[in-house]
Amino acid sequence: MMDAVKVTALAGGIGAGKFLRGLVRAVPPEDVTVVINTGDDVRMHGLHVSPDLDSVTYWLGDVFDRERGWGRREETFRATGELRGFGAPDAWFNLGDLDLATHLFRSPLLAAGVPLSEITRRVAERFGILALLLPMTDDAVTTRIDALDANGSPLDLHFQEYWVRRRAGDGVKAVRFEGAGTARPAPGVLEAIGQADLLVLCPSNPVVSIGPILAVPGVREAVASRREAVVGVSPIVGGAPLAGMADRLMPAVGLEVTALGAARAYDGLLAGWVIDDRDRDLAPRIRDLGLRVAVTDTVMTADVVAEALARTALELVAG
Amino acid sequence: MMDAVKVTALAGGIGAGKFLRGLVRAVPPEDVTVVINTGDDVRMHGLHVSPDLDSVTYWLGDVFDRERGWGRREETFRATGELRGFGAPDAWFNLGDLDLATHLFRSPLLAAGVPLSEITRRVAERFGILALLLPMTDDAVTTRIDALDANGSPLDLHFQEYWVRRRAGDGVKAVRFEGAGTARPAPGVLEAIGQADLLVLCPSNPVVSIGPILAVPGVREAVASRREAVVGVSPIVGGAPLAGMADRLMPAVGLEVTALGAARAYDGLLAGWVIDDRDRDLAPRIRDLGLRVAVTDTVMTADVVAEALARTALELVAG
Repeated sequence: MMDAVKVTALAGGIGAGKFLRGLVRAVPPEDVTVVINTGDDVRMHGLHVSPDLDSVTYWLGDVFDRERGWGRREETFRATGELRGFGAPDAWFNLGDLDLATHLFRSPLLAAGVPLSEITRRVAERFGILALLLPMTDDAVTTRIDALDANGSPLDLHFQEYWVRRRAGDGVKAVRFEGAGTARPAPGVLEAIGQADLLVLCPSNPVVSIGPILAVPGVREAVASRREAVVGVSPIVGGAPLAGMADRLMPAVGLEVTALGAARAYDGLLAGWVIDDRDRDLAPRIRDLGLRVAVTDTVMTADVVAEALARTALELVAG
Repeated sequence: MMDAVKVTALAGGIGAGKFLRGLVRAVPPEDVTVVINTGDDVRMHGLHVSPDLDSVTYWLGDVFDRERGWGRREETFRATGELRGFGAPDAWFNLGDLDLATHLFRSPLLAAGVPLSEITRRVAERFGILALLLPMTDDAVTTRIDALDANGSPLDLHFQEYWVRRRAGDGVKAVRFEGAGTARPAPGVLEAIGQADLLVLCPSNPVVSIGPILAVPGVREAVASRREAVVGVSPIVGGAPLAGMADRLMPAVGLEVTALGAARAYDGLLAGWVIDDRDRDLAPRIRDLGLRVAVTDTVMTADVVAEALARTALELVAG
């Protein structure tokens, strides 16, 4: 384990979850703070669902389903199956029965005015998580996709509608973070960025996972001011996202779908960038951006791989 | 099957559900309207739970659990189990995963301003129910129990808190129907009472199941004006309730826990009263109240028993 360094990670969902399991093996978990995207939070059946917060929680809480990638292990989907029978408008979004408990716990607290960050603390505590998990903001920020359907008609879609319901099948014109302009970072976010010894941008979608976090006023500037301590791990391996459909979103914001394109998404924020062995050939061009580069196995099929990856990332920008 | 007679039944939960399965075998289900208690509706985890509406729906929709008495057959309780892990304040109320779907379907519609009666229609349709199910009111009416705890300290409890959480263990001083004073009968309720050929008070708790329905302004008067067509089935057999804990509530409103005491709960509303074989000896005293009396098997262990009971009840006041 590395000497006591305080690490703050910016995180989306699944890729981040896998990586963070390694990070808390590489450094003491109490020294890790995770700032998590809430731009894809969504109301389903009247409940407040926080997909990325919950993914990270389930991965770190050791109740994740590695095979499915999202949601909880030994999950069942009986309530959602029934809701489909009712023709409920949100039944296209598959919520597990165990997962529902998280949303049923969170939603009435939110309605009673308890901040999301405080609820997140209670949920993390219930799963015995020692790292500090912070939503990027307690305010409502919503990732919306300006898209074109098959007939070329414009669509204004919630990210989940674009991603899950329509399976990223529409042409993307633009990505917007509704509400980001007036959102405030959640308590502790700017401090965690300012006071960390090292900062990590997890291997998450740069556009819709890390992008919303950086869109919260003050966060991008805080990260940029710590640039020398910031390392990122490429979510793109061999020209395709390891998980998800980043290839549909990166071109819409002018990024090529490569480990180089993903590094460019973080222009001005990084000192180091970790890419997969398969992308070794891109290392010189990434160095040309002024970044240190590490090349290693980034396909996290097990916690030991994630741990080695986390060490490699931290060492790239440490000391 | 009896000749086309329109029947309107006033109903609570489990006892009513069992009886109604017989009633829709005795007369065509399309000719049956059921006015259902909503006084024990309750918010749990932010969801609107309607125990009696759902009990009747599940019984008539053939998805009931006869052994457990409440809830759905082949039910699981994974979400509620998890909520207990969270220490959620409402986790003492056991909601099944299939049952949750009903509440998750209903709650956002209610929040959007759709009346409970319209939602009830959609839920009944989903379960293929041909009888018309009506909540007693679309307004909020809440059964509250003024109680004394073991130390003699006064408690003001929601009915479910008294009944489920505290297992009817407190002394009951009074039963109140909060909001009943300004509630309006749901659309169709007064018409169903006024236009029915026969009316049935189901074998439900007279105090907290049928009581709230009669407390909605206009309902008691409407039933009273049809008195000659009204038959009730005693929920008390051999001096004890067949289900539930009516014995704790009837004395609080001055009723003895017998088939006679239950009949007295409906003073001025009944023409006929059906009691169990075991209560044969009470028949003369019930006749002294001016009621016709039928004595039969009222323990509905199967639909055929409920059907025979329904026939007996209807014939007692028919023609």
